[in-house]
Amino acid sequence: MLVVQKFGGTSVGTLERIQAVADRVSRSVKEGHQVVVVVSAMSGETNKLIEYAKHFSDAPSRSDMDALLSSGERVTSSLLSIALNSMGHKALSMTGRKAGIVTSSAHTKARIESIDPANMHAKLAEGNVIVVAGFQGVNENGDVTTLGRGGSDLSAVAIAGALKADLCEIYTDVDGIYTTDPRIESKAQKIEKISYDEMLELASLGAKVLQNRSVEMAKKLCVNLVCRSSFNDNEGTLITKEENIMEQPLVNGIALAKDQARLSLEGVVDRPGIASDIFKALAEADVNVDMIIQTTGHDGKTDLDFTVSKDELSEAHNVLKPFINGKEISEITTDDSIAKVSVVGVGMKSHSGVAAKAFETMANENINIMMISTSEIKVSMIVAQKYSELAVQALHDAYELDK
Amino acid sequence: MLVVQKFGGTSVGTLERIQAVADRVSRSVKEGHQVVVVVSAMSGETNKLIEYAKHFSDAPSRSDMDALLSSGERVTSSLLSIALNSMGHKALSMTGRKAGIVTSSAHTKARIESIDPANMHAKLAEGNVIVVAGFQGVNENGDVTTLGRGGSDLSAVAIAGALKADLCEIYTDVDGIYTTDPRIESKAQKIEKISYDEMLELASLGAKVLQNRSVEMAKKLCVNLVCRSSFNDNEGTLITKEENIMEQPLVNGIALAKDQARLSLEGVVDRPGIASDIFKALAEADVNVDMIIQTTGHDGKTDLDFTVSKDELSEAHNVLKPFINGKEISEITTDDSIAKVSVVGVGMKSHSGVAAKAFETMANENINIMMISTSEIKVSMIVAQKYSELAVQALHDAYELDK
Repeated sequence: MLVVQKFGGTSVGTLERIQAVADRVSRSVKEGHQVVVVVSAMSGETNKLIEYAKHFSDAPSRSDMDALLSSGERVTSSLLSIALNSMGHKALSMTGRKAGIVTSSAHTKARIESIDPANMHAKLAEGNVIVVAGFQGVNENGDVTTLGRGGSDLSAVAIAGALKADLCEIYTDVDGIYTTDPRIESKAQKIEKISYDEMLELASLGAKVLQNRSVEMAKKLCVNLVCRSSFNDNEGTLITKEENIMEQPLVNGIALAKDQARLSLEGVVDRPGIASDIFKALAEADVNVDMIIQTTGHDGKTDLDFTVSKDELSEAHNVLKPFINGKEISEITTDDSIAKVSVVGVGMKSHSGVAAKAFETMANENINIMMISTSEIKVSMIVAQKYSELAVQALHDAYELDK
Repeated sequence: MLVVQKFGGTSVGTLERIQAVADRVSRSVKEGHQVVVVVSAMSGETNKLIEYAKHFSDAPSRSDMDALLSSGERVTSSLLSIALNSMGHKALSMTGRKAGIVTSSAHTKARIESIDPANMHAKLAEGNVIVVAGFQGVNENGDVTTLGRGGSDLSAVAIAGALKADLCEIYTDVDGIYTTDPRIESKAQKIEKISYDEMLELASLGAKVLQNRSVEMAKKLCVNLVCRSSFNDNEGTLITKEENIMEQPLVNGIALAKDQARLSLEGVVDRPGIASDIFKALAEADVNVDMIIQTTGHDGKTDLDFTVSKDELSEAHNVLKPFINGKEISEITTDDSIAKVSVVGVGMKSHSGVAAKAFETMANENINIMMISTSEIKVSMIVAQKYSELAVQALHDAYELDK
């Protein structure tokens, strides 16, 4: 089997941890697998380099930052290669360039455009373990670029896709994806298998184990992703195509996002294009609007409620104040003590009653639902933040996710 | 004027020092010069990375080490570029690869084979200050290589040669080249100008400001080298072609090498090829022999004295023991309390009496000369180590180097 194994910053945070990673890779090789390892910088290193740069400039050039930051992964990949060689394996380290990773020129947030796997294939064929510096590539001019947040995961998934690897294992400090946050619901279960789409909903809704960019790329390239811990040998969670999951449960997980805020616009004048004007103004200020509810008010006016992430609340408020002065909105009230609770499951596509059960569960607990939003595979509800843990626990029970 | 400025590890050892380097480069730019900067890793960084590697292996692969060690200079060059940009200059950082430096494939001790200056010329023409990561290049496969000890100096000299720069300034923690070690002779004077050949003699004889590899390359490429301090604004020492130095003093400096040891082989059988056998055995053990004196002994036997560096003494002794067992040498005695004092000056080529004055000076001080070796531009003498400071001071006076 050809496996890509990616180890993040905490997994390679000390020399002892790097040795532990080498031991794990070694075991995979001894089991007969071909292994390509992708590593991040040792935890803390990237932040240290950013601090260094800030000493000289508030706005360093992005190409300088890429030249600077890409050094952290070089160090880790070289050290892991040295460790593997010293254990008797044939290993070599590769930069993003040598691994054939070509990106856009958007320094510090480049997109992977293509991977030429020829060099990796050749070195694998010679019996090498390849250790690739994650988070980096080169643009068409041959300048080093970095991929931004979650970049090493992206490197791993893209490499797995280019090599047509059987598996891409993302090693992190958690055991896998859970039916909900175990700190909230102690009966939370690790999910064995989950579809890309469900994972995308769970991630964007607050389960921040994997970045959405990585899951989207895995879906596009049909890469079988496994999310597991580098600190123990527990099986992780397989994220794969829906078709690969034989028995699809109705609901796979309950997600909670606490960093939400609501804006209620009362007395919005009922002229054509007013909603468009409001949301265009928000978009131009880079405010990301999530759920929207419009209700008919009185006197030919409407009420408009929507949610944003909490750290964009004051910006959103500022953007909308001119509408009050222009007499197009009577009043704006805000509420930053709300939370979004979501029920996610591919199974609900083919089953009715999933949403009804969610609403019933909330009613049984006397939790008021402020807003509702649904998609094919999720039901999201806005509730007062003080009820969020209770809501998660009640839903977890109601869908029998502890079974 | 096009100037290459090289700053070593202590000159960029802290963020404050890097800012001081940026200030200095900035001044050169404001004076109207085009500037290419070559930097080493921050002092301590390279050793830290070597320690990391040793944690995993006693003999890490050289290509892994190059991938590892080359990261230090990348960090410094990026940071200096960021500092210069933030001061309003147009600056960019380049790896050895981007600077067009192609080397042999001898990882960790590669030789510069060629420099394609096209990219640097283009970026200079656009008004940029270029900050090159020293100590590194790429081999013909595009793999990163490093140049070994003194590598950043070599990078700077080679770049100056390729760009036909007017000057290559090597910034270090000393003010320049002195007539002798100021810690031994307080009247030592900084030398204003010195020829490549004299510098080579002074360097190999113990004045370790510049590595011989760099001086040799400067000589070959006719690069005007200036050795000066990054901690003050004093003029440094210009190392240049003999023809460029109008008034050539008889003697330019007194060098002292203390790390010397002598082996005396007594009763060496007088058969053809015996000397060749002895020195071939030493060469095969990588022992570097410096001065050699052969004297006729008695009974058709000879005595053979030679010097090696102190840290190779025991190896040399071991290599020669079989000759005693083979009855080809009667006895080997060693002496590691010797020193080599040398008088260096291009002027002595055209003047007689320089050596005689050296011997006379030793005699006046009652210092016994154990061995003598001369070249066109130097006279070296082995003396007991306890006399070494006295010898240096007396010679410095005798040749009036304090004037």
